[in-house]
Amino acid sequence: MATSKPSVEPLVIGIDIGGTGTKFGIVDRVGNVLFSGDISTKKHKQVETFIDELHDHLKVLIDKAGGVGRMKGIGVGAPNGNYYTGTVEYAPNLPWKGIIPLAKMIEDKFKLPVVLTNDANAAALGEMMYGAAQGMKDFIMITLGTGVGSGIVANGHLIYGHDGFAGEIGHTIIIPDGRMHEGTGKKGSLESYASATGVRLTALEMMKNTKTKSVLRSFKPEDIDSKKVFEAAIAGDAVAKEIFEFTGKILGMALANAVMFSSPEAIILFGGLTKAGELILKPTREHMEANLIQIFQNKVKILVSHLKESDAAILGASALAWELQ
Amino acid sequence: MATSKPSVEPLVIGIDIGGTGTKFGIVDRVGNVLFSGDISTKKHKQVETFIDELHDHLKVLIDKAGGVGRMKGIGVGAPNGNYYTGTVEYAPNLPWKGIIPLAKMIEDKFKLPVVLTNDANAAALGEMMYGAAQGMKDFIMITLGTGVGSGIVANGHLIYGHDGFAGEIGHTIIIPDGRMHEGTGKKGSLESYASATGVRLTALEMMKNTKTKSVLRSFKPEDIDSKKVFEAAIAGDAVAKEIFEFTGKILGMALANAVMFSSPEAIILFGGLTKAGELILKPTREHMEANLIQIFQNKVKILVSHLKESDAAILGASALAWELQ
Repeated sequence: MATSKPSVEPLVIGIDIGGTGTKFGIVDRVGNVLFSGDISTKKHKQVETFIDELHDHLKVLIDKAGGVGRMKGIGVGAPNGNYYTGTVEYAPNLPWKGIIPLAKMIEDKFKLPVVLTNDANAAALGEMMYGAAQGMKDFIMITLGTGVGSGIVANGHLIYGHDGFAGEIGHTIIIPDGRMHEGTGKKGSLESYASATGVRLTALEMMKNTKTKSVLRSFKPEDIDSKKVFEAAIAGDAVAKEIFEFTGKILGMALANAVMFSSPEAIILFGGLTKAGELILKPTREHMEANLIQIFQNKVKILVSHLKESDAAILGASALAWELQ
Repeated sequence: MATSKPSVEPLVIGIDIGGTGTKFGIVDRVGNVLFSGDISTKKHKQVETFIDELHDHLKVLIDKAGGVGRMKGIGVGAPNGNYYTGTVEYAPNLPWKGIIPLAKMIEDKFKLPVVLTNDANAAALGEMMYGAAQGMKDFIMITLGTGVGSGIVANGHLIYGHDGFAGEIGHTIIIPDGRMHEGTGKKGSLESYASATGVRLTALEMMKNTKTKSVLRSFKPEDIDSKKVFEAAIAGDAVAKEIFEFTGKILGMALANAVMFSSPEAIILFGGLTKAGELILKPTREHMEANLIQIFQNKVKILVSHLKESDAAILGASALAWELQ
């Protein structure tokens, strides 16, 4: 029996840290996620126990994939992750407060080089390397999850800003004195409307402020989430459709402002809310166009990421690691 | 008598086209404006007669400076100017409508290479080459004139966007359904508040909506302009001070959004409104900080350009021409 010669092709590890859960995987050069897993972020009050659990899980995958010697490095996407310093700073959606030297901690634990950026920047790199933004030099990635993240690519490069924190479109103020964001204490930011959390809050407000019949009224307020709103909307529920209409209006205004800032070829949307399809895309597109001055109108594509959601976050984070020397 | 040998050091021509007037000059490598002049933009309904008059005036200066052979090229800053195509497209503040191939027209007339961008991008290059942004790699230039322009520099390069039109922060929507902008038909843009025109409109609104005594009430409405508001404010007029307070509030919100987008080291302000000094800078700074999430707070400098106003526009446009091959 012939033994197959072990491949020496290098691999990278991608780790995507979200407010709720963390996904990780081992990825090859062309974007195959060879092994993957996930753990809870939320349950770890201490970052140390989080890294221990992450290492325990990844160790098994690394061994399956040929051992640590085959790994080129680790790319990490995390909210408020700083590319220059490798730290996560004051992330409103993470359980760990203050400034966390996450890249250093992971490097010490795994004995591999680590590069870190914010999760949406990582997602943008993933789209540029493997997804809808292949070949583009100017685009904006918007992730619509628990929060709203963004990564801005101009002239082929991510904009990191002077301190590594550029690309926080989710926190730009769209409605002055608008809805309070519990995490940041700021009012009227994009994230307070166009996230899963925001859709839930819009639903609760609409139930309170209108008398219109809706299937959503059959749930307890604490049980209403963006998924239930989505299901009601595709079943034709008028209030649920109105919720997406309103969410798209706010998102469209924010996208118009982003377009007038960096004039991208396309905006790539990713995340749970995009599952609502035209229910959210139509008002988003309409309100974006309505707020653009003439030179920007009818030029900018709004695209939905076609990367598999379970892989996309890992691919984005892994894309960072290929840049390691 | 010894004849001095004519210098062969190359020079460039800078042309800054504004809605009201156009400034031009001949500039050396270190930013001395050797010769300069200006003509009216507004009076030329036809771009052809504008270019004829521009050429008549500049011809004299070019001859004084050693002739056309010594000129490396021409840099042009113009509203809605497109770096990639050399055209000016649908500029709301210019008398010429549609798409104007301005770089080509000037090139044909002057027989010199021409490079064009929008006026605020040119101003940003001028600040980077000769002014307050020397040594910076990430900053945003905001020009507060008849309109509001912006130039965004990230990682040492101007952001032009996929089509050459990036950097229109003046048209971003700050107050949804806010004040109508006559030029664009859009509501609530930064420019409709934080420009000389905007300050005038705020003054008229405040006179109408309050009964507070003000020296501004002694003028006919059509005679009120940002200069009169400025003079009243430094003389201590409460309404005039309130007008700058309000203008600074809107500007501060817009700057906060810009910071969360590209995380610059500094924002450089330029133009007539900056003459109001702390009357406008204090509320601008306060409202910017109040709308920033924690990671961006107390980091970003708001600087006022220290280039001489009469030279700055010419220097900015000329900075473009040094990039010509």
